[in-house]
Amino acid sequence: MSQIAREAGVADGTIYLYFKNKDDILVQFFQYKTKQVFNGFREEVKKADTAVGKLRNLVYRHLTEFQSDRNMAVVYQSFAHHRNALVEGNIREMSKMYLDIVSEILELGQQEGSMRKDMYVGLVKRFILGAVESTINNWLLSRKEYDLASMAEPLIDLFIRGIGVPGTPPQNKV
Amino acid sequence: MSQIAREAGVADGTIYLYFKNKDDILVQFFQYKTKQVFNGFREEVKKADTAVGKLRNLVYRHLTEFQSDRNMAVVYQSFAHHRNALVEGNIREMSKMYLDIVSEILELGQQEGSMRKDMYVGLVKRFILGAVESTINNWLLSRKEYDLASMAEPLIDLFIRGIGVPGTPPQNKV
Repeated sequence: MSQIAREAGVADGTIYLYFKNKDDILVQFFQYKTKQVFNGFREEVKKADTAVGKLRNLVYRHLTEFQSDRNMAVVYQSFAHHRNALVEGNIREMSKMYLDIVSEILELGQQEGSMRKDMYVGLVKRFILGAVESTINNWLLSRKEYDLASMAEPLIDLFIRGIGVPGTPPQNKV
Repeated sequence: MSQIAREAGVADGTIYLYFKNKDDILVQFFQYKTKQVFNGFREEVKKADTAVGKLRNLVYRHLTEFQSDRNMAVVYQSFAHHRNALVEGNIREMSKMYLDIVSEILELGQQEGSMRKDMYVGLVKRFILGAVESTINNWLLSRKEYDLASMAEPLIDLFIRGIGVPGTPPQNKV
């Protein structure tokens, strides 16, 4: 804690006014960062008028945020390796907030008529989050050799259009 | 090791003929299990004639395998929590094998005309693997309250059709 206080340029005593211990610093940092990131997501989503536009902005912002914040990548990787009871609750909360934003977008899309009414929204929203997280993970494993944000458009394209050729007759279970 | 030998009903000395130590048992088990699982995947894929059928069989088999093998779930969860240098190479190899099987199916689909020629196969195959893993993960976190294999059809539907309504005018970046 003393070292942290030194780095921050404050007296030891001052640090303890705000944080109980090092774990507390981590938890508070996470909560602060989460609030910041999600405000950013909601802002980006508001900027678009259509459901697809909103989804695109959200995913693009998500990837850009990750790519530009080296610290986030380091922290993310450390939690990928070791589960941490301290921040698990926080991570669950973040997932729920993300899923709520995506849910709203999907429901808007259904109202607009741009997205299918016969989709399983519960599955699709998790599918979208899983695909974005998987993209980030692959980028980290590839040692960040390409522009992560450039994956946003291909992802959106996959979500919206799928991989099938429209008009192909349904192919039943073999 | 003695305890393991006892459980297996063999003498201590016999165990050491096959395994150097406990770590070695784990590694060999993984290699054996991987071979078994992937032979099963390839068999299922062969049973279908069309690309979509093959993809469906693969995903269905993947989810069924996971749901029916309690041990696999336990092992999987333990590696999700702590990275293990011993099996990391094995896990990378498994991912590569899975991606290769999916690649072949996507290329077949493109040849058949049932899947888009303008898709990024490199991204799509990882997207598909990521979505299936994410589905398994969510199922584990939900404490397995529903039938995992029943997620295969909705997943395939999402991959093939996407969530957009065909014929909606392209919605550009806002």
